[in-house]
Amino acid sequence: MTFLDKLSAAQERNHSWVCVGLDTDPDKIPTSLRAQSDSVIKFNRAIIQATQDLVCAYKPNLAFYLMRGSQGITELQATIAAIPRDIPIVLDAKFGDIDSTARNYARFTYDVLGVDAVTLNPYLGADALTPFLESADHAIFLLAHTSNPTARIFQDQLIDNEPLYIHVARYARDLEGLINLPGLVGLVVGATFPEQLRDARAANPNAVFLIPGIGAQGGSIADAVTFGKTAQGIGPLINASRSILYASSSDDFANAACAATLKMRDEINGGRQVNK
Amino acid sequence: MTFLDKLSAAQERNHSWVCVGLDTDPDKIPTSLRAQSDSVIKFNRAIIQATQDLVCAYKPNLAFYLMRGSQGITELQATIAAIPRDIPIVLDAKFGDIDSTARNYARFTYDVLGVDAVTLNPYLGADALTPFLESADHAIFLLAHTSNPTARIFQDQLIDNEPLYIHVARYARDLEGLINLPGLVGLVVGATFPEQLRDARAANPNAVFLIPGIGAQGGSIADAVTFGKTAQGIGPLINASRSILYASSSDDFANAACAATLKMRDEINGGRQVNK
Repeated sequence: MTFLDKLSAAQERNHSWVCVGLDTDPDKIPTSLRAQSDSVIKFNRAIIQATQDLVCAYKPNLAFYLMRGSQGITELQATIAAIPRDIPIVLDAKFGDIDSTARNYARFTYDVLGVDAVTLNPYLGADALTPFLESADHAIFLLAHTSNPTARIFQDQLIDNEPLYIHVARYARDLEGLINLPGLVGLVVGATFPEQLRDARAANPNAVFLIPGIGAQGGSIADAVTFGKTAQGIGPLINASRSILYASSSDDFANAACAATLKMRDEINGGRQVNK
Repeated sequence: MTFLDKLSAAQERNHSWVCVGLDTDPDKIPTSLRAQSDSVIKFNRAIIQATQDLVCAYKPNLAFYLMRGSQGITELQATIAAIPRDIPIVLDAKFGDIDSTARNYARFTYDVLGVDAVTLNPYLGADALTPFLESADHAIFLLAHTSNPTARIFQDQLIDNEPLYIHVARYARDLEGLINLPGLVGLVVGATFPEQLRDARAANPNAVFLIPGIGAQGGSIADAVTFGKTAQGIGPLINASRSILYASSSDDFANAACAATLKMRDEINGGRQVNK
């Protein structure tokens, strides 16, 4: 099953474009859980169980696990094992290194963790990307325009009258043809910059979008829905992390996460109706 | 002791600008060691012991450890513990993520691993960098021009008639003033692109350079020496990994690594005499 088939099936089955970011901060999980061993794993399992019928993907961010050293990597593996196999998983790692090193990151991503896709940084060019594209089961999401406040410092610099992130969006479009590898090339475009979201879609009508910046970061669902879909009708992965994980700081956190995911899914689906 | 003091002291004590990249691939270590438990740690300890009087820094690359999951992180920690405290350690991780996530990578770098410095990707702008600069004991090496074959795809694109990597080099120069944080901002500039090495130095006379691409990648030591030094006379970290680690594939690997490091150090020092 290709990455695209898996994503499309999950989007259709759960009628959802919501991606839940599993960026679990042990200091933010409910006090009663925090005292227990394996508290991060227990928290993540509860979040996954509460949301798995409402999402099209999960996206754990490597930093939130790596900051607890080897234990964190074990927790990341246990988290991944708790996700139903028919829901695609994107490792948010923003890797970008030279070919021989990129191969090792690809081994970590696909062999050690066994996830479906990974976010990558475009700065190093093609040889940092190709090791991740050797199977149609896999996808990369190339950073085009990120959601953070200082994203524009380099990403909006003009090259031949067009900003760098547009060149990256076009490069992603051309990459599949250039390198002749079966993996899918998607784009990360933050919802916190609506104009850039619109222009990235115009520059690359066919790329699957991973859209961060909704929820705690303040991006608009309406923009994500309007520009998120590919020309072929493949929906984006609209990500929220903190607004779902910490919807409640009490023992009802899983129910609250479920309600927050449902609300976000319905808001997205309302927008999809309007855009039809 | 600031990062700069620690680096300068090591450069002077060992009369060396050599940085050894601890990018240990278990498949490339001698067969007799490979059969043993903790073979990577044993190999790294032997390399460190054989080279510690000949280097100014060590640079383990995260990918080579992460590809063995939680065990790899433990091996990375054991490797770091084997390095004398007066030799600076640069984690080569090329991190680049939004502020809240970057804080977690900084915790991993400085608290979990306890290394002195880290390589970072500039694509996300300032908030991906600042969490790593909160102490004068620490340094970041911002990717300006990398050593890989496809580095030029984005890095050499012209913005206002100057390539992107020059803007990054200037940004590193300005960053210390802009953000008013005590950490040192250096640059990664590959030796495989000599013109770019020259131009990056012209754009930023004061940045400490970390120069990969020597050895297996084919960059020239002469260029690294000519353009490596800052205006204040601080030498670069000229990195070699494979040509030192695998100088011999037999049980004499540590002696061979020592000889290869000595040869590289002397070649660099010969160039320094010429450039005086």
